[in-house]
Amino acid sequence: MKNIHIIGLGLLGGSFSLALKKVKPELKITGFDANLNHLKDAHTLGIIDEASEDIPQDTDVVILATPVDSLEKLLIKALEEVGENTLLIDFGSTKEALCKSVADHPKRAQFLAGHPIAGTEYSGPKAAKDDLLEKKVFIICEMEKTDVHLKGMAYDIFEALNMKLRFMDPEEHDRHLAFVSHLSHISSFMLGKTVLDKMADDKNIFDMAGSGFASTVRLAKSSPGMWAPIMQANKENILESLDAYIANLQVFREKIHSGDTSELSSEMNEINKIGDILDLGK
Amino acid sequence: MKNIHIIGLGLLGGSFSLALKKVKPELKITGFDANLNHLKDAHTLGIIDEASEDIPQDTDVVILATPVDSLEKLLIKALEEVGENTLLIDFGSTKEALCKSVADHPKRAQFLAGHPIAGTEYSGPKAAKDDLLEKKVFIICEMEKTDVHLKGMAYDIFEALNMKLRFMDPEEHDRHLAFVSHLSHISSFMLGKTVLDKMADDKNIFDMAGSGFASTVRLAKSSPGMWAPIMQANKENILESLDAYIANLQVFREKIHSGDTSELSSEMNEINKIGDILDLGK
Repeated sequence: MKNIHIIGLGLLGGSFSLALKKVKPELKITGFDANLNHLKDAHTLGIIDEASEDIPQDTDVVILATPVDSLEKLLIKALEEVGENTLLIDFGSTKEALCKSVADHPKRAQFLAGHPIAGTEYSGPKAAKDDLLEKKVFIICEMEKTDVHLKGMAYDIFEALNMKLRFMDPEEHDRHLAFVSHLSHISSFMLGKTVLDKMADDKNIFDMAGSGFASTVRLAKSSPGMWAPIMQANKENILESLDAYIANLQVFREKIHSGDTSELSSEMNEINKIGDILDLGK
Repeated sequence: MKNIHIIGLGLLGGSFSLALKKVKPELKITGFDANLNHLKDAHTLGIIDEASEDIPQDTDVVILATPVDSLEKLLIKALEEVGENTLLIDFGSTKEALCKSVADHPKRAQFLAGHPIAGTEYSGPKAAKDDLLEKKVFIICEMEKTDVHLKGMAYDIFEALNMKLRFMDPEEHDRHLAFVSHLSHISSFMLGKTVLDKMADDKNIFDMAGSGFASTVRLAKSSPGMWAPIMQANKENILESLDAYIANLQVFREKIHSGDTSELSSEMNEINKIGDILDLGK
């Protein structure tokens, strides 16, 4: 493995490259980004050694790290372009539609459907960090559909990056992610909106915001260009999680309204156990 | 100023004492907590020099740092007990009802209504940290109702602790805090509940939770004993903020449902500006 090509040089693509260069400095990393400012920044920041719109002939692994609405087209185009010894890996946040789109593709075995569970509320190559992926979970879907030999390169990379592999089918991935990622982003965006709307009356409201507010609203800084397509691609699961969330809020609202403090208390007590569950995962 | 007495030796009362001891080691700090394990821990951890259920005669400043449902009774009892040179300060998260309850009290001038905007999702003396209050906002309500001489001691303390003072009336405080603190806690608790409910079907769901989920659900670890009373004391403002939040979620849900990606995108773009506003406050 000598040559890597990355399409999409934002937070994930950029962080992937920086991490890989640290542990495998001998690799040559080329790449492209449709945003030419990002492409230039990625070069300046040493994320890529060389810019290239086409996938170079001798590329071993191509990484697709663009928003999910562009992945399907990019993946099919890349599959046409590459030789038989090249592996394609995507980093998209939704997996079902993408996997379906290439289910019967003659070169399906050259594709590995992946999703690194890592990110921040920032985007673009300047937000990339060489430790973003460190010890994070990397989900692989339909691993049995990828060629054994090519898959070996992916395992080498993710092991070198110290990532924890998890395997599941694309439907399960999308269903889970709606609850533990996509819903969080929506709750955070709407919390931000609710307080911004209130600010129209009360200019100094943010003066009183503490670390709790900052923590719950942090994701409202996330990139709309990344998130609107996710909400489209994973619509059904997101609607299910959102409806459950809104229903829970409405029931809790009625408990506050009726002033049943002991009922509120016992409900929050039950939910407190999420702390233990999250800490277990550390 | 020589003697401080703290009632409620949890996260806030404990952190206050540890910070004060660092900058004013000559002070003698006594205290009490109705939870006798907390009282014992506070003594062991050096949060108090001595346990005392009664407020010692020569106390200069009494801090009330208990959940809001106990503050009114405690404050009135303490006002009866203390001599005319003692200042009482409360740290409660809601201010309107408490200020009203002592509005006509003959010793009203010996009370300062305060609220340090600081906390974590943890509680109890073991969670106390000597830097929790550092550079945080301390809100004072009805400052004109507190005796000028006694108030001087409070200013000395908060200056020594490097806190930033803000002044507002109790109604404004409670209205603002509903939006920038209380709502965040409810959104976080309900997010936790929604995912815990889902976990009944999908045991491994937390494996896929990244830092975004952890951030939005962090407050769901908060103490029900502290938060149920806040939801009671600030019910009307909280219901207003919660209704606005639920309405925003419902409108956004419909936009996802109708698949209007550009509308979702432009709405999230608008909300992104919360990042600049929050960063300005740093």
